Amino acid sequence: MKPPKTMKIKVDKNILAANEEYAEKNRQLLGQNSLLCFNMISSPGSGKTSILTKTITDLNEKIRIAVIEGDIQTDFDAKRISAAGARAIQINTEGACHLSAAQVNNALERLPLDKLDLIFIENVGNLVCPSALELGEDFKIAVLSVAEGDDKPAKYPALFAKSKVLLINKIDMLKTGVVDFDLDRVRRDASRLNKNIGIFEISAKSGDGMSGWYDWLQEMVQSRK
Amino acid sequence: MKPPKTMKIKVDKNILAANEEYAEKNRQLLGQNSLLCFNMISSPGSGKTSILTKTITDLNEKIRIAVIEGDIQTDFDAKRISAAGARAIQINTEGACHLSAAQVNNALERLPLDKLDLIFIENVGNLVCPSALELGEDFKIAVLSVAEGDDKPAKYPALFAKSKVLLINKIDMLKTGVVDFDLDRVRRDASRLNKNIGIFEISAKSGDGMSGWYDWLQEMVQSRK
Repeated sequence: MKPPKTMKIKVDKNILAANEEYAEKNRQLLGQNSLLCFNMISSPGSGKTSILTKTITDLNEKIRIAVIEGDIQTDFDAKRISAAGARAIQINTEGACHLSAAQVNNALERLPLDKLDLIFIENVGNLVCPSALELGEDFKIAVLSVAEGDDKPAKYPALFAKSKVLLINKIDMLKTGVVDFDLDRVRRDASRLNKNIGIFEISAKSGDGMSGWYDWLQEMVQSRK
Repeated sequence: MKPPKTMKIKVDKNILAANEEYAEKNRQLLGQNSLLCFNMISSPGSGKTSILTKTITDLNEKIRIAVIEGDIQTDFDAKRISAAGARAIQINTEGACHLSAAQVNNALERLPLDKLDLIFIENVGNLVCPSALELGEDFKIAVLSVAEGDDKPAKYPALFAKSKVLLINKIDMLKTGVVDFDLDRVRRDASRLNKNIGIFEISAKSGDGMSGWYDWLQEMVQSRK
């Protein structure tokens, strides 16, 4: 019997080629509008949506942000983004473990691109699969909460190797003593995988460390204009 | 251009058929040895390995346990299991987002099956993909930590719909006030997806609630003999 692994690799190449056509369309669309686009990837529950709602609330006057929300089911996250004051397009993947460039293309066509500065794509919660698909974004942003453990960059290296920025979220939990998390280990392992990765230690809930992240975002938007 | 989604579905059927042949081999192997086998699935960092090391330490005299450890990279988890006193076989998927039945078959052949009562398969940390592949297990066990948020059964329904048991882990965090997590919402949403799901609220770290889980495990092992 042909081993499943071989079959999988063969197919993934077809999927990746089809995906790349749409990723290139997305790059062109974003480029024509001088738009910055980040693809946020993490495990479920690391706090992607909370980081985005806090960021939108605090930077609403300074940066025009929209969010493309990827979820298997529900529109909870798009509603949270809308409530924070930004345009949100919800995509339900109906079981698929990542967003495709075609789905993002469909969402981009529904956004007023000439009235925006920055688009966040919030991918399906999954530390593995989404990092394999380019969506046409400028950069990937990895999110890791301290509740997930400090061994994650070593155990799930692909995302950390490919991301421009790592947001270490929920650092307010460190003070409670219920979480064992060695920040130095994560910094060291992530930097070994990716020597240029920028790391921000934040808490979307308490607001700790958010100002450094905001400064970086504003610099990135300025540099695109 | 043919949409990627269609291609994906076509291929998944081939992979699933090839996988099912090995899953059936595993069922036969487990059945011949009156062995119980659980497939543990969760996001990265929900505490699967910590639950297993605590369970092995506490039930060492009562149940003969082995663990098949699935990770993309590293053998950290197999080392933790061995240190707790159980036999562990580490499988590195080298990028793949779930274990396959063929990989589990290979691991089973390296274990002394006639000297065991229970095998845990600790799948790759991923709340989405592993639930699509049968490995030959008796049941799936879902793990969700309170740090991940109470919206996860609704947002990632497939695993919760298919699992025999849901372990809600890290309940010691609820006392600290840093986590917003509505246990009733999770119980309600999980039971709506799966009316027979058994739910244990535990903390592998503090030991809270573990005795109910141990009683259930021992009953299951007894019923297999």
